Amino acid sequence: MNVEIISIGTELLLGDIVDSNAAYLARNLTELGFNINYINTVGDNKERIVKTIKQSLSRADIVITTGGLGPTTDDLTRTAVAESTGRSLYQNKELEKRIRDYFSSRGRTLTPNNLNQAYMPRGAEPLLNNQGTAPGILLETEKNILISLPGVPREMKGIFAKKVAPYLVNLTDKTIRSLVLRFFGIGESTLETKLRDLIDEQSNPTLALLAGNGEVKLRITAKADTAEECHSKISEVEKKVKTRAGKYIYSTGDKKLPELVGEKLREKKLTMAAAESCTGGLIGSRITDIPGSSDYFIGGITAYSNRIKKDFLGVSQEILDRRGAVSRETALKMCQGIKDKYAVDYGISVTGIAGPGGGTEQKPVGLVYIGLSSPDDTQVYKVNLNGDRAHNKWMTSQYALYYLLLKLQ
Amino acid sequence: MNVEIISIGTELLLGDIVDSNAAYLARNLTELGFNINYINTVGDNKERIVKTIKQSLSRADIVITTGGLGPTTDDLTRTAVAESTGRSLYQNKELEKRIRDYFSSRGRTLTPNNLNQAYMPRGAEPLLNNQGTAPGILLETEKNILISLPGVPREMKGIFAKKVAPYLVNLTDKTIRSLVLRFFGIGESTLETKLRDLIDEQSNPTLALLAGNGEVKLRITAKADTAEECHSKISEVEKKVKTRAGKYIYSTGDKKLPELVGEKLREKKLTMAAAESCTGGLIGSRITDIPGSSDYFIGGITAYSNRIKKDFLGVSQEILDRRGAVSRETALKMCQGIKDKYAVDYGISVTGIAGPGGGTEQKPVGLVYIGLSSPDDTQVYKVNLNGDRAHNKWMTSQYALYYLLLKLQ
Repeated sequence: MNVEIISIGTELLLGDIVDSNAAYLARNLTELGFNINYINTVGDNKERIVKTIKQSLSRADIVITTGGLGPTTDDLTRTAVAESTGRSLYQNKELEKRIRDYFSSRGRTLTPNNLNQAYMPRGAEPLLNNQGTAPGILLETEKNILISLPGVPREMKGIFAKKVAPYLVNLTDKTIRSLVLRFFGIGESTLETKLRDLIDEQSNPTLALLAGNGEVKLRITAKADTAEECHSKISEVEKKVKTRAGKYIYSTGDKKLPELVGEKLREKKLTMAAAESCTGGLIGSRITDIPGSSDYFIGGITAYSNRIKKDFLGVSQEILDRRGAVSRETALKMCQGIKDKYAVDYGISVTGIAGPGGGTEQKPVGLVYIGLSSPDDTQVYKVNLNGDRAHNKWMTSQYALYYLLLKLQ
Repeated sequence: MNVEIISIGTELLLGDIVDSNAAYLARNLTELGFNINYINTVGDNKERIVKTIKQSLSRADIVITTGGLGPTTDDLTRTAVAESTGRSLYQNKELEKRIRDYFSSRGRTLTPNNLNQAYMPRGAEPLLNNQGTAPGILLETEKNILISLPGVPREMKGIFAKKVAPYLVNLTDKTIRSLVLRFFGIGESTLETKLRDLIDEQSNPTLALLAGNGEVKLRITAKADTAEECHSKISEVEKKVKTRAGKYIYSTGDKKLPELVGEKLREKKLTMAAAESCTGGLIGSRITDIPGSSDYFIGGITAYSNRIKKDFLGVSQEILDRRGAVSRETALKMCQGIKDKYAVDYGISVTGIAGPGGGTEQKPVGLVYIGLSSPDDTQVYKVNLNGDRAHNKWMTSQYALYYLLLKLQ
């Protein structure tokens, strides 16, 4: 079944926000076995919203909109849904009561515009919102299903997971499963050359290469009557891929580096800490994005200034003078320093030049040293990155986590 | 002039990546004075790419695509651009040479598919790419301008900034300017109620309310012949807004909290350090996202485990036993501890329960204490958040930076 997504909001057309809602919906709909051919973005303009909804209804079985359900005057989705399906709006008494209760229970003042959210197109089912006041809309017409969700990501996700996904799952006949292989240390086109015939020949499963954030992913997607059939189709292709490029695969599945590192540490009952310079705390933040990371992540020292590298991590003034803050020796002392000081099994350190300033001919922007002190030994890796500040910070954290994972495996 | 954006790539329809390119282009095009009515996303399917390009050409003066210019077989934009404008493709010898040079200068092996990128639609101008091998395409037809850029954000941004923006800037007649006011501590609908008549009555400038990431923004956009006229129109409305809700405005313009905090610290020649528990390093990472932050950010201690809070930040065992790690007293000691230990002017601390686990009835998920020790005094703020782990971490960093900014102002 085809689904089309419509993201509504002038802020998207002005580039004020990035449309993460569409990606969330696309990912979840794909996993449920739906096919998406188009995602459309339109502003807070009723005529254009109506046109877009009508076009999507003419191309797809199911249309899901996000945004434009709020209380303010530029929230036009309710009206546009009614108009594009030839229905009128009415005030739903139950919704009105819920909105009043929501405000009084929080001690907040109800402003009249909040009650706009109690209006529904005739025949639609309200999708209650536990995280805010804007209810979603589920409307079954003769040929299509039209679903409208709020634009605030938390509210949208809450309604999608609790109401929409369980509803949609009953509509699919074919099962789709996919597997993601994650590669590090190989470029997209080199990998594509290795796998070209497989990518060209395969139609079920299909193979798709995706590059981004310093890694390449391969998604193998199979369609069949049962999940088992899907898995066996996928596993056949997976074997072929592994024969050709297995050594670059660092993970199978959706888990990213911080989660994989965490799993290994927990499994082995080991602890770690981070001494960060150019990443400013990003590595610790990424590790602690994983629930339960307090089991293995003890903490860190962010040594942005040389004074902290010296006083708290044991990097000597001599090293700083003779080798510099961005050097193999500094990275070495930093990872040993944090390991000893925090009494952990693994100490990881990064020091580098994130840019845009601070580079020299000998030490250009993007030069990074990564230290890893383990119960066995201490190693320092040198990496040359070539992006902007944000990219260099991100890639430094990727490499640090990658080397740690390799060591743990 | 109307511009339409087309994002091309099956990975977008599968939700594997979030479309940050469209937001970047939208923001930059808006600033240049262009109007955007639609953003379209389509997969690696030639027929649908051609259809989408044709539809966009029929609605807009300028169409900009991103993605699908890579070397692999699912990169179909070159062909689709040629087909939708009735042109043939030819191999551009100069581009071929550039690609060969790119590979040999990096010591990388050229695979035959890389040379696909040397093809151009007849009459198009290649937009050279300094960060990769995929050149962009600039094609002027009788009625429209069609521009294709690579999908890798760095490469897309590089070509846009260097080639496309200077080209487009000559095409606009009207000048558009906008001003963003940033609010903290007031909800979107409360603010809308305060400003409703202004929002309804104004058509030039227009007022748009945007909520997200725990703050509300108001964008005032004016159109006129000159930048000066725009500014005077904006400033008139700005005054009215400030009379009604000025106390919630923490900033005027595009600068976010880490940048504003940094400016204040630099201006006053002051330093800071962070003691982080539940944010795991996020505050330090956000502060160091700003180039030159080493002028005022000395570093931090991430005390994820209680042992680190005790041994390195001076939180006593008694406080941990009697008040707990998430308490006013712990936050107080943490910010004083980091201030003394790192010998800085401002010490900031956060301790809280990010969730999803770890909450109790007395101390639910989302409870956070924020400590701020300044040269004058030490204060602790209590915040109750109600999101998921990522939201709670983010909002904790927002509040910490916000309180620090208030103190610095």
